[in-house]
Amino acid sequence: MNQYLEFAIDLADRLQGQTGTNPSVGAVIVKNNRIIGFGAHLKKGESHAEIQALKMAGTQAEDATIYVSLEPCSHYGLTPPCSKAIIDSGIKSVVYAVKDQSLKNSGHEMLQEAGIEVSHEPSERAQALYNSFFQQQNTKLPFVTLKISTSMDGKVATDAKESKWITSKEVKQDVLNLRSQHDAIITGGMTVREDDPLLTTRSEELKDPKRIILTQQSDFNEELKIFKDENNPVIVMSDSNHFKVNENQNIEIVNKEGSNLKNVLYQLYEAGYAQIMVEAGPTLVSKFIEQDLVDQLIIYQAPKMIGGQGKYQYYQTNDVYPLSNSKLFKIISTEIIGGDLKIILRKK
Amino acid sequence: MNQYLEFAIDLADRLQGQTGTNPSVGAVIVKNNRIIGFGAHLKKGESHAEIQALKMAGTQAEDATIYVSLEPCSHYGLTPPCSKAIIDSGIKSVVYAVKDQSLKNSGHEMLQEAGIEVSHEPSERAQALYNSFFQQQNTKLPFVTLKISTSMDGKVATDAKESKWITSKEVKQDVLNLRSQHDAIITGGMTVREDDPLLTTRSEELKDPKRIILTQQSDFNEELKIFKDENNPVIVMSDSNHFKVNENQNIEIVNKEGSNLKNVLYQLYEAGYAQIMVEAGPTLVSKFIEQDLVDQLIIYQAPKMIGGQGKYQYYQTNDVYPLSNSKLFKIISTEIIGGDLKIILRKK
Repeated sequence: MNQYLEFAIDLADRLQGQTGTNPSVGAVIVKNNRIIGFGAHLKKGESHAEIQALKMAGTQAEDATIYVSLEPCSHYGLTPPCSKAIIDSGIKSVVYAVKDQSLKNSGHEMLQEAGIEVSHEPSERAQALYNSFFQQQNTKLPFVTLKISTSMDGKVATDAKESKWITSKEVKQDVLNLRSQHDAIITGGMTVREDDPLLTTRSEELKDPKRIILTQQSDFNEELKIFKDENNPVIVMSDSNHFKVNENQNIEIVNKEGSNLKNVLYQLYEAGYAQIMVEAGPTLVSKFIEQDLVDQLIIYQAPKMIGGQGKYQYYQTNDVYPLSNSKLFKIISTEIIGGDLKIILRKK
Repeated sequence: MNQYLEFAIDLADRLQGQTGTNPSVGAVIVKNNRIIGFGAHLKKGESHAEIQALKMAGTQAEDATIYVSLEPCSHYGLTPPCSKAIIDSGIKSVVYAVKDQSLKNSGHEMLQEAGIEVSHEPSERAQALYNSFFQQQNTKLPFVTLKISTSMDGKVATDAKESKWITSKEVKQDVLNLRSQHDAIITGGMTVREDDPLLTTRSEELKDPKRIILTQQSDFNEELKIFKDENNPVIVMSDSNHFKVNENQNIEIVNKEGSNLKNVLYQLYEAGYAQIMVEAGPTLVSKFIEQDLVDQLIIYQAPKMIGGQGKYQYYQTNDVYPLSNSKLFKIISTEIIGGDLKIILRKK
């Protein structure tokens, strides 16, 4: 793999989680083996990666090569097409890693027709960055990651309400990082009432996600910490028509149908939330799994056995499913973090 | 690590599971950079590794170096001490990987006093081979491995009795190999009655373990496959004083106390079973975990969710344990086999 294309992919990777329903893209411009410009798409509605890089390179861009993690766009969206800007800049050649299946007209062809050398150098790592973006183009649903912290035998709490202490502090830090890579976190009213969580990244260096609570009740206790931050109001979706915001609670009500999960997800995607993580208790977690709404599963398993008869297990359904009807995933990777096992799985 | 010592450790590794309560040991003899003899301990009561290697080397052993995975023994047991045989052979130097903590008199010193150069080159891999042996010297209990094949959410069966089909065929092969590395398999009467398993290695190339069934009932159906092999009779430990062996069943009754697990294990160790694997249903599995009798846990997790309310989960106790009382393990390794996750854990 070309080192400059690798750098462009690194940039795209670095910016994941802050471009909303847009893909995260990196671009690097090189002339005579020297990098003369680079950039990345920072936020939906703002400049694309190629434009940032061209701006840095200025007039030097003439006869240079631009490396981009994703095929340059060819359409007028919120910003003019990057392919046009590349042509106007006098760039000599374009190298990109992933073909943009969502483009009506190929950027590759548009550039080629303007006399630019274009080459597609496929990269698995870059492809993995855009899987969820391409999926969303079809489904119009956010990419949903379900995060579960559990004992080896599938329990997420004990009678002593110890759900926070099942996994290690290193796992907690990993979860804070995960939050920063998502546009929003969905949780359930019960989790908020029982655990009083913040669901932020607890770091000034990490971007906080939007926090979304699905509840069937009509208000929340005034003192809950999650509602205290006036700079980051919480979205509440309640099934109650009479949801009441108490004094000093920073809450936005956006929907009265918190229990129709697929509708909730359509609505969130339309509002620009493309990467969503679910951190919730067994009731909500089980609904997401049972309704096939989980694209990615991140399970932290602590090497301990809690036992019991079924209480506190993260996946609960009325009946035991036969294997032909069980929910299938594929293991993508495993890693040991602070003595616990992190397993990443994707919907099969 | 010295290549000859590595070879000696390989030999010890290769022979694991057939030396009973004796440690598996490999030995390699080298002279002028040529291997002139090697051997391993094949079976309790037969020659030790050093003796096998000395026999192959013959008179060439004089002035040679012997590499051994474990410190040569210094005591008269079922066979004369290896250290004496090494001294008598004229060997010039001895290199070993693991200090034998179970020796009353150090083999290292005995050799040194006879004028032989002795060096201890520690190896983590070799150390891992002898952990269970050293443990047994103290506890007089076999090393117990509990094997579980489960869905990601901890279920080992469905209403349609699909326990055999939860994990992949590659996992099944891995389990057959595991069986060959154990002196005996323990299972429960219920598993035998419901699944009619063989619990063999199904291969002429792999050693079959002794099969042991713990039951509270007083007989087994005549047709069960496990009792058909007259060359490998099954040990049944029943709580019933009137256990009845049916015609054509190859059964040895050795105990009337199948439900006192610790006693069962003491008795099996005394009878020479040092490496035992438990393959059973939730009732027996839960007893082994709850009574802290599991040294090693091998879990195969299929990336699927079966659901339900607690039925078929492999670990079932009357109450949910608080974390301070949960059963703790340590993750040793993970591996993906046929799309499923194999996790090896040790008691913490």
